[in-house]
Amino acid sequence: MKRPLSAANASTKLSTRRGFLLKSMAVGAALPISALAPTQAAHAIGESFPDWMKTPGQAVNEYGSVARYEKHITRVKAQDTAQTQLFSVWHSPIQNQPSIITPNGLHFTVSHNGVPNIDPEQHFLKIHGLVDKPIKIDMNTLQRYPMVSPIHFLECAGNSASNAVSLSALDLSVQALTGQVSGAQYTGVPLKYLLKEAGVKTAGKWVIAEGADGGSHARSIPLSKLLDDAFIALYQNGERLRPEQGYPMRLLIPGWEGNANVKWLHRLEVTDKPAYTKDESGLYSDILASGKIKRFSFHMDVKSVITQPSGKMQLPAQKGFYEISGLAWSGYGKIKQVEVSIDEGKNWSIATLHGPVLSKSLTRFSIPWQWDGKERVILSRATDELGHVQPTRRQWREQYASYSFNHFNAIQAWAVNSQGTVENYYV
Amino acid sequence: MKRPLSAANASTKLSTRRGFLLKSMAVGAALPISALAPTQAAHAIGESFPDWMKTPGQAVNEYGSVARYEKHITRVKAQDTAQTQLFSVWHSPIQNQPSIITPNGLHFTVSHNGVPNIDPEQHFLKIHGLVDKPIKIDMNTLQRYPMVSPIHFLECAGNSASNAVSLSALDLSVQALTGQVSGAQYTGVPLKYLLKEAGVKTAGKWVIAEGADGGSHARSIPLSKLLDDAFIALYQNGERLRPEQGYPMRLLIPGWEGNANVKWLHRLEVTDKPAYTKDESGLYSDILASGKIKRFSFHMDVKSVITQPSGKMQLPAQKGFYEISGLAWSGYGKIKQVEVSIDEGKNWSIATLHGPVLSKSLTRFSIPWQWDGKERVILSRATDELGHVQPTRRQWREQYASYSFNHFNAIQAWAVNSQGTVENYYV
Repeated sequence: MKRPLSAANASTKLSTRRGFLLKSMAVGAALPISALAPTQAAHAIGESFPDWMKTPGQAVNEYGSVARYEKHITRVKAQDTAQTQLFSVWHSPIQNQPSIITPNGLHFTVSHNGVPNIDPEQHFLKIHGLVDKPIKIDMNTLQRYPMVSPIHFLECAGNSASNAVSLSALDLSVQALTGQVSGAQYTGVPLKYLLKEAGVKTAGKWVIAEGADGGSHARSIPLSKLLDDAFIALYQNGERLRPEQGYPMRLLIPGWEGNANVKWLHRLEVTDKPAYTKDESGLYSDILASGKIKRFSFHMDVKSVITQPSGKMQLPAQKGFYEISGLAWSGYGKIKQVEVSIDEGKNWSIATLHGPVLSKSLTRFSIPWQWDGKERVILSRATDELGHVQPTRRQWREQYASYSFNHFNAIQAWAVNSQGTVENYYV
Repeated sequence: MKRPLSAANASTKLSTRRGFLLKSMAVGAALPISALAPTQAAHAIGESFPDWMKTPGQAVNEYGSVARYEKHITRVKAQDTAQTQLFSVWHSPIQNQPSIITPNGLHFTVSHNGVPNIDPEQHFLKIHGLVDKPIKIDMNTLQRYPMVSPIHFLECAGNSASNAVSLSALDLSVQALTGQVSGAQYTGVPLKYLLKEAGVKTAGKWVIAEGADGGSHARSIPLSKLLDDAFIALYQNGERLRPEQGYPMRLLIPGWEGNANVKWLHRLEVTDKPAYTKDESGLYSDILASGKIKRFSFHMDVKSVITQPSGKMQLPAQKGFYEISGLAWSGYGKIKQVEVSIDEGKNWSIATLHGPVLSKSLTRFSIPWQWDGKERVILSRATDELGHVQPTRRQWREQYASYSFNHFNAIQAWAVNSQGTVENYYV
């Protein structure tokens, strides 16, 4: 239940007011130079220098890499007995990602049959089926078409599945729980141009999109969505797609579940009905509480997660100023609002949304927090521009069978105990 | 001189109208499957398969890399006799960058004394001089402050210098000419919070920002800019700064010349006047036509460049449909308009700006072009929201001494000859 801030007691109060913010941060944050030990104070005013100011630096190279002190921040393979070299799920370190762009090297990735090593000179996009003129386009020709460059999130339908079905999830980090979501600027050719060129027949209502991987991953997509905002992505964050992201081309269907954005795309077949491929009738189905299967759940629902602080973290001090921050997104459009609670959902405060706030994109939010050192349960709740609001975990579970795990978008809670350790928590 | 499109003759006409676009693209772009040789046609309908559809794929790894077919797209060291391991300038492959985000591995970089190998545990930010309370902040403490995450461009003051002073520049690619500009989403702590905490004295008007590299690169920055939109950047595109971009922290001063965004930042000294450091009184000065030195030219001016097609490229066909596209930016704010000419500046058409159009950020523009196969000179001209317009090369040169080379922002022209080769061209 939402109450005005003035009704909240002091210890559960959050505020974005400037004065509060600056006053709070000054408490115990930086050290006055006079309080430092003599050698540190000397260093502070430049009388002694670290080695790297007394020696020539190293050479730059053609592509570069992260600093050696940061090499431990990587994707992590999901801890799941089903994982093999061919079927693997890698989670992005979202606890370390403060922005809406995920570096290509850290983007989450799921593959059902490993990563094919495709020679772009031997790869073509075919459009056939219910069309006037079947076409086959090579990569060089595709490069000549007009392109768009939107920023979007991608999320696996199974992201946060552990929260849906597993009690052992209480001991997991945000990377392990919700690391199957990333953001990027994609560049590619709108499908409407290509479908118009092939000439879709009146009977054409669906398109079967197939990848050129060993498993021929395939999904049925309504034609209307492809003619709306879908495109053939060739670039991700200013360079060609990485192999594990679908090189040399993938389908990009903004806001829809990850596996529908078919990687290594080589074929679009226009049909009058869905194909019910193994990839859409099996793993990626949602089972309702009634036991019936929900037929197609393309959109990724509105969702948010606090990434700082989050599960398995240890706050560096017992009390004082912190910034609570995280990511929010919706497959339906823009994020309109994110609320944060530090008292298990009794009171909510509106977080700052950091621009750009874009449609079907990650959106960063933050709010200052003066922690009183007591045990707290912190939550975030996102609302999108169509009015969708994140459900509680209980509300989410009431919709689905107890063993259904896709499309989990319930409110994520973290418990901060009095020692500053942070743990996954169910409200 | 700008004329309405209807006044242009057919061969120099550009249009963004949908009907024109789709009709144009259909000419000779994709191949009908029926026109393919038999083995290709079989492949097109799935009767034979490439090797990568018949074998298991490869494993994903922790960080990944670009496809082996794309590894030739890298930063390139400037071809200049002044280059050494310590003083080096690396240009970004902007001809291959279709978006406003540059991957961290391809971001341009300039270093005057190599890249220091800084241990973040031993690195501090000091704020001293005309302040009430000198402070020294370690990296862990800095991480606790509120952060912002804007998307901005960075450009070296010397970008496009070859166009300003060298006739040999006519044989260069856009990477060699104008590759010292890149775009990224940065995340960091606003300077206003830190300066407020230190308490700037009334006499404080400037801040000397110094890097912890072997050359102690230092610049004087007006306090007013630091209190406006400047911040201490810790992250670039969702991961910690790369070493060559200032790890573990750099100054980020949106819209101002690259070298003022001091890398490896360790010290901010509040003063009442500029320090006139070697780095601002030497290399990074602009010499006016009168012979006088322009004292401080912080802003990067409005600029644009067509990246497709651009210098040293060979158009893949003799005539037909192409998309002309490129990047525009201004250190003063948002890009308002980009115009494109295909007849050496006689007629101009307004290009499409692809969102998000952000302040002090790269902005992608494009316009469809039906090339008639004749020799053409193509140009782009950007206007920013404050009304600044790119000058011609002649206008730009009239302002400065013949040997002054910084802040070159004149209109870039490319000549496309009848064989489809593209070359740098001065109008």
